[in-house]
Amino acid sequence: MKQDRILLAHGGGGSLTHELIERLFAPAFGMKELEDSAVVEFAGQRLAFTTDSYVVKPYFFPGGDIGKLAVCGTVNDLAMQGAQPLWLSLGMILEEGLPIADLERIVASIKAAAADVGVKIVTGDTKVVERGKCEGLYINTAGIGRVIADVSSTRVRPGDAVIVNGNLGEHGVAVLSRREGIAFQTSVISDCAPLWSLVQSALISGAEIHAMRDPTRGGLAVTVCDIAAASGVGIRLQESALPIGAEVRGACDLLGLDPLTIANEGKVVMVCRGADAGRVLDAMRGHPLGRDARVIGEVTEKPKGMAMLRTAIGGERIIDVPTGEDLPRIC
Amino acid sequence: MKQDRILLAHGGGGSLTHELIERLFAPAFGMKELEDSAVVEFAGQRLAFTTDSYVVKPYFFPGGDIGKLAVCGTVNDLAMQGAQPLWLSLGMILEEGLPIADLERIVASIKAAAADVGVKIVTGDTKVVERGKCEGLYINTAGIGRVIADVSSTRVRPGDAVIVNGNLGEHGVAVLSRREGIAFQTSVISDCAPLWSLVQSALISGAEIHAMRDPTRGGLAVTVCDIAAASGVGIRLQESALPIGAEVRGACDLLGLDPLTIANEGKVVMVCRGADAGRVLDAMRGHPLGRDARVIGEVTEKPKGMAMLRTAIGGERIIDVPTGEDLPRIC
Repeated sequence: MKQDRILLAHGGGGSLTHELIERLFAPAFGMKELEDSAVVEFAGQRLAFTTDSYVVKPYFFPGGDIGKLAVCGTVNDLAMQGAQPLWLSLGMILEEGLPIADLERIVASIKAAAADVGVKIVTGDTKVVERGKCEGLYINTAGIGRVIADVSSTRVRPGDAVIVNGNLGEHGVAVLSRREGIAFQTSVISDCAPLWSLVQSALISGAEIHAMRDPTRGGLAVTVCDIAAASGVGIRLQESALPIGAEVRGACDLLGLDPLTIANEGKVVMVCRGADAGRVLDAMRGHPLGRDARVIGEVTEKPKGMAMLRTAIGGERIIDVPTGEDLPRIC
Repeated sequence: MKQDRILLAHGGGGSLTHELIERLFAPAFGMKELEDSAVVEFAGQRLAFTTDSYVVKPYFFPGGDIGKLAVCGTVNDLAMQGAQPLWLSLGMILEEGLPIADLERIVASIKAAAADVGVKIVTGDTKVVERGKCEGLYINTAGIGRVIADVSSTRVRPGDAVIVNGNLGEHGVAVLSRREGIAFQTSVISDCAPLWSLVQSALISGAEIHAMRDPTRGGLAVTVCDIAAASGVGIRLQESALPIGAEVRGACDLLGLDPLTIANEGKVVMVCRGADAGRVLDAMRGHPLGRDARVIGEVTEKPKGMAMLRTAIGGERIIDVPTGEDLPRIC
């Protein structure tokens, strides 16, 4: 490790997060890939298992709260592995002084989100820490799902199409708009949503889907860089095709952020056989969360392991994995 | 809820923790019992699923650290359900400024503890929060196991024997001895240990084991009160039979704590058919973690749902569930 202390950037989802995983966690635990979930075999069937901690600040934000996020985020990690979400665990770390009314509202939100996706919260744990030692509450959810499709960031091939189901950057901008010290006026609300039913409709459409990732921490930039690296292919995104709303663009300009690096919590980047793109788009557009689905790029042979952006004026630039220093903590 | 804000006692493992679960979480998520793990059916087999967050302060303590604790605690929750631990998830919340060397030591400790019990860490997540917003690091582990025995706090019957595998109160006292502000001299080290192989040897001994619980937060007091309430029986502990070391007794006197309420992290309270107590003791004593196993009490018909302590001088007192206010945070 280059640093001798943990930096905020180690949690940003960029290259410093990758370094932490690759140099510390992966060697210790023998993890090979940076997939969203592990797949193990139990009683002869494939089971997906994943975990995420949620430390979003503030814990209520436009379009959701930390409870909804904690359900959607983990359910989506299972969905990205082609797994039907079945059960969640719920670990809460509460700050002394947290208003019970806030906790009740968050629990109601967890209940609603779980019911929405048909997943059951079956086990839980609560700890309380002294005032000031967390920010209201931190939540961990782990999830178990049943794998019904073979998808992996390593299965992407030249000729594949890159599809996203709608507008980018809305979760990150919505959270930032309420952040102490930088609050600004916007009507952007978080896209936080459970993606399983959308993903399922694409999976059963008959299309050959190779990989799925939800562009959360580090945004679309990290997602396409990860897939390009895992499959040893080039990914070329068309800037003109990227669905980014005017308000998100404006907020990014204001804050000096690249919309490609802003987190989403209700988006899936799906990579399928090029010839099947229409089938995936049809399936997605028939679902409320996929009405704005579109092809945003293609997979090429070269440059191997890299993602490029074809700009609106005809140029091309490399999409870099951000270090994480410029990525706000939004999940 | 009687309070309108979260108190430290809500996390103490006593009656306020119970209130939080019974009034808020259980109604929202339809949880029926306060078992350590959920049991669900996957592919026709019973799977146990559990979660725990660890916020122990300080994160290094005599006999272990937060990493070892995070593996043992979750593995033990699975074991208490009669489940062989198979896989763990690892969610880390790191504080900005945490020395990487400390993190490396904790990761090594997680790795060693997992290898010791034969469980695999298959998925993980890392978040970083601003300096001061956690205490070095908080860890969540969720675990999956294969259920091989039918045990439940509701299956205890009059005539059963109550057994524990060794000295009580050592984890809590070891952690407190290093706590800022109240540090004191002691050679007590935490009993933190993975209990699965000990439990397994008792399970395969042929003894009829009805219930198992690890007396962590709230100690033996909460454990026996919970079991008595769940099974609608009386539990009578013999004070003279309780294995409590002189140093733990001394520390409890010093701090005004009841050793029955102090947390353990390497102890199991096993309730078996009275006639099978010898068989369980034999199995336990053949294992390094069970050499000091002994019968500490019996199950009676009355008083229904209550636990009593027969004191050394021949009296009897009710064992109360502490509210949690006097319980130090030690896990």
